[in-house]
Amino acid sequence: MRLFFITGLVAAVCAVQGAADPLPSWNDGAAKSAIISFVDEVTDPAGDSYVTPADRIAVFDNDGTLWAEQPVYFQLLYAMDKVKDADPADLTTDTLKAAAAGDIDAVLASGKEGLLEIVDFSHSGMSVEAFQRDVAAWVNTQTHPTTGLTYAGMTYQPMLELLSYLRDEGFSTYIVSGGGIDFIRAVAEDAYGITPPEVIGSQGKLTYEVGADGPVVLKEGGIVFVDDGPGKPVGIMRHIGKRPIFAGGNSDGDFQMLEWTTAGEGPRFGMLVHHTDGDRAFAYDREGHIGVLNDGLDEAGERGWVLVDMKDDWARIWSGD
Amino acid sequence: MRLFFITGLVAAVCAVQGAADPLPSWNDGAAKSAIISFVDEVTDPAGDSYVTPADRIAVFDNDGTLWAEQPVYFQLLYAMDKVKDADPADLTTDTLKAAAAGDIDAVLASGKEGLLEIVDFSHSGMSVEAFQRDVAAWVNTQTHPTTGLTYAGMTYQPMLELLSYLRDEGFSTYIVSGGGIDFIRAVAEDAYGITPPEVIGSQGKLTYEVGADGPVVLKEGGIVFVDDGPGKPVGIMRHIGKRPIFAGGNSDGDFQMLEWTTAGEGPRFGMLVHHTDGDRAFAYDREGHIGVLNDGLDEAGERGWVLVDMKDDWARIWSGD
Repeated sequence: MRLFFITGLVAAVCAVQGAADPLPSWNDGAAKSAIISFVDEVTDPAGDSYVTPADRIAVFDNDGTLWAEQPVYFQLLYAMDKVKDADPADLTTDTLKAAAAGDIDAVLASGKEGLLEIVDFSHSGMSVEAFQRDVAAWVNTQTHPTTGLTYAGMTYQPMLELLSYLRDEGFSTYIVSGGGIDFIRAVAEDAYGITPPEVIGSQGKLTYEVGADGPVVLKEGGIVFVDDGPGKPVGIMRHIGKRPIFAGGNSDGDFQMLEWTTAGEGPRFGMLVHHTDGDRAFAYDREGHIGVLNDGLDEAGERGWVLVDMKDDWARIWSGD
Repeated sequence: MRLFFITGLVAAVCAVQGAADPLPSWNDGAAKSAIISFVDEVTDPAGDSYVTPADRIAVFDNDGTLWAEQPVYFQLLYAMDKVKDADPADLTTDTLKAAAAGDIDAVLASGKEGLLEIVDFSHSGMSVEAFQRDVAAWVNTQTHPTTGLTYAGMTYQPMLELLSYLRDEGFSTYIVSGGGIDFIRAVAEDAYGITPPEVIGSQGKLTYEVGADGPVVLKEGGIVFVDDGPGKPVGIMRHIGKRPIFAGGNSDGDFQMLEWTTAGEGPRFGMLVHHTDGDRAFAYDREGHIGVLNDGLDEAGERGWVLVDMKDDWARIWSGD
């Protein structure tokens, strides 16, 4: 009987704690308060700011917002690993040779054309499904060069809690990423609880073919849509068909998504994850080659966007710790 | 007391009838039986053919499958009405003048270029939201030249019942149309209970702009994606990210969608609405300029696709009757 009593007590305490703190990995502070106040406001049916569940749409950038993006985008690290596995005879350019050698600096120095070459080499000539099976295996088994965590373990625990909290409160949660749509869909359901139709990203060319194994949709390489900067509102309108009320990002590639989201009528929420924690993660903002944040830092105040200070606002960083 | 008894009895009878017949506007026959058998099969958790709700994806063509498409696609009739409302000084070509005069034959004779000109003229230079408000008003107030019903009233009642039945059984229902994605989204939620993200269609160019009224996503005209024929599996992979298990269409523009859907592993369902009813609706199949069906008629039998005979299988046609 005593065991039953204690079990019941623990469950009751946990239930109360859960209700009291939907964001346990967030330190108490302005960012956490602003999020909870906003959610309370739009979900109170008696309030002036009530928003019906159908319009509770929250959009999030992926790289640097939901998981890490250093030393480079994980999708590029995946692509380099695929080049490494390829037949050396197929590595006909300096860029592909640098990728196979794992030389990140040389790969970055090859510029946009070089990156596209590596992505094309590694992301085309197979069905979407076959590509995604390979990506899913990679993120769950390969480890990051400095943290030693699997890539799947480098999602941000506070952001996982925010996604769950929003969904529990009747929101739909979407990813809107400059990264490749097929790559992120291979990761998002397990990592974030975000289903494939809820992932928006940059797109390569797809073709429909009936081959020896029956009909398939094949990845053909190239880029037909860039879901970054002003492309993010366009991608959202294409996929979701309406304007969100909540947007989260971390770089100037997210500026227009936050601008458009927060300019709508009624209650709106914009937030930027600010990479201030060089000890537990990576510190960067105004300079560099990844996740550069200038306009957002300059304008967050006047636009009412919440800056999330990773060092001060997050009690824990990695989901995989 | 007697009234209570009768009310209770009526409610009980209705409940039993509802459970017994989820498709009341479908006549008993092979098509209706095949649909119900398939749904029973994939939703029986004890059966070998059970499919989890996340994979119960059903896709439907729109024009000619969920609503009528004669004498021409309703989107073209909308576009012609918009040309008619325009400043005559802006009607600088014969095609635009024919559209303003309501001359459908001349418009069709202008070919693809002419149709694109009319669509561009009427579908660009405004925000997506403004366009959709106008479309929604049009379909609910303007009437069809021969039936006299509003366009919104020309959805097929049996198909509305099928959509509801599938959703009640845990399916997600999507539209996959050669028509314009923004046009159909303006109609689909009220007409079919299908939300904007569940609509896939052909796409014009969109741009993001910050104007006097703040940031908006503008329709720029042109065509960047044709969601027809082999484009339908591509559109589905782009938006949904996985292969459906149920596909419904009515013309050869739906062939690849049915082919790809029904080639997947496990239980699959393909159906084609066959326009056999010239009295209550419109009769057409192998010839004409709209909804041509040849490959589907030739191959439905060997591929196991269900041909729905509108005349014999549907007890009622229009939702608006």
